[in-house]
Amino acid sequence: MTAQKPLILITNDDGITAPGIRKLITLMKELGDVIVVAPDSPQSGMGHAITVNDTIYCDPVREFQDADHKEYKCSGTPADCVKIAVQEIMHRKPDICVSGINHGSNSSINVIYSGTMSAAVEAGVEGIPAIGFSLLDYSIDADFSHCDTFVKRITSQVLENGLPQGVVLNVNIPKLKASEIRGIKVGRQANAQWVEDFDKRTNPMGRDYYWLSGEFVNHDEGQDTDEWALANGYVSVVPVQFDLTAHRFITELNSWNLNP
Amino acid sequence: MTAQKPLILITNDDGITAPGIRKLITLMKELGDVIVVAPDSPQSGMGHAITVNDTIYCDPVREFQDADHKEYKCSGTPADCVKIAVQEIMHRKPDICVSGINHGSNSSINVIYSGTMSAAVEAGVEGIPAIGFSLLDYSIDADFSHCDTFVKRITSQVLENGLPQGVVLNVNIPKLKASEIRGIKVGRQANAQWVEDFDKRTNPMGRDYYWLSGEFVNHDEGQDTDEWALANGYVSVVPVQFDLTAHRFITELNSWNLNP
Repeated sequence: MTAQKPLILITNDDGITAPGIRKLITLMKELGDVIVVAPDSPQSGMGHAITVNDTIYCDPVREFQDADHKEYKCSGTPADCVKIAVQEIMHRKPDICVSGINHGSNSSINVIYSGTMSAAVEAGVEGIPAIGFSLLDYSIDADFSHCDTFVKRITSQVLENGLPQGVVLNVNIPKLKASEIRGIKVGRQANAQWVEDFDKRTNPMGRDYYWLSGEFVNHDEGQDTDEWALANGYVSVVPVQFDLTAHRFITELNSWNLNP
Repeated sequence: MTAQKPLILITNDDGITAPGIRKLITLMKELGDVIVVAPDSPQSGMGHAITVNDTIYCDPVREFQDADHKEYKCSGTPADCVKIAVQEIMHRKPDICVSGINHGSNSSINVIYSGTMSAAVEAGVEGIPAIGFSLLDYSIDADFSHCDTFVKRITSQVLENGLPQGVVLNVNIPKLKASEIRGIKVGRQANAQWVEDFDKRTNPMGRDYYWLSGEFVNHDEGQDTDEWALANGYVSVVPVQFDLTAHRFITELNSWNLNP
């Protein structure tokens, strides 16, 4: 008698052809049965967007699938992919949802802009243990080879231990050689932000337009943050919740003169 | 000598022509100097999306502005609107950012899908006190008249008291007559979710597609939640944070066997 293999839902925000998700699929096939439902085009910066005023297509990708696993490309956002996978594609609720491996960081404040993490959060909302994986290298040619052991170990540990309701994991991996990585640090989201510096241009018709650009600024000197871990050669793991209530402020807010 | 009037940035996710933002502009002009930078088209369900791979236009709307205030329509998301307002449009950092009044609820889990709240959160990230206002009525013809006193009082209180760094307010107003509203309740985000029920159709070319639909399910019986307040005739105020760290889970996560 063999135990049932875990059922693993894989998605991302860079699109189904991105090297990061191809790597993640290879790794997950070592751990369980895999179904891929991922965007048909890049969705970076989509945050937790969902498609409410448009149609969603979700079609099998025959060139990618084999006897072992099925893949679907979806015209929606990463959060849409998770919703449609669970509701329309999969025969049972997955045991875990993994998102990534993102080409670029989703540490600290990037978590709120991240399509990769929105997929993990959406799975969490639906009661599925979930992890977002990101590599600190935006390049399409990024080297993911040093990610293997960390991605597999963290996923195995979540499959073994589960996650509390309302918590998913945000894993960021530094752009280093395997031999340079010092291990894993569990920490908190650093207090950091992007300071915008819009690039203003004029189009050929004479109308001004902008490109969003900016500089990442970390205001946080704590050594228990994801930014500290990454800057010091560690893989960062941050438990992320989607109860956004600032519980610490409720008592003070109740003392305000709010009622007209 | 008169004190300087507060400088108020107004945005939303339903677009600059929506009745909800027109109402909010009227109310805010009683409280301070107003600048409007809002999407040129509806952005519902956009979550905390930002525009990273496309150009952004942001043009004055001459038909709306008068001697007292300026308005700009922006091709980007609500979060883009706040970024571009602060960086490119306004001569100084606003004293407050208000977003809405949204046509439809942003209570409980809706906060993570909400363009209205993403604008407030973006302002919060930039250190600006911020409030998202939503009315529990999706109709374009929604009656906002009972919102006036609550919107002005809550905004005045934030201007007077400030908000702690890292906290913004999520205000939801029930669809009731003014006389039926029992007051304001400060509470927490209810533990609720959307249970999807995709509407699958076939297009004229024979290809299947989906519409996202679903049923809202509240799993939370607490009387300290936003859902309870709204169901019982109160305006709900929830303090919202964007440090998403699940601090309560860090100790346990450190006990896992994470390092390969």
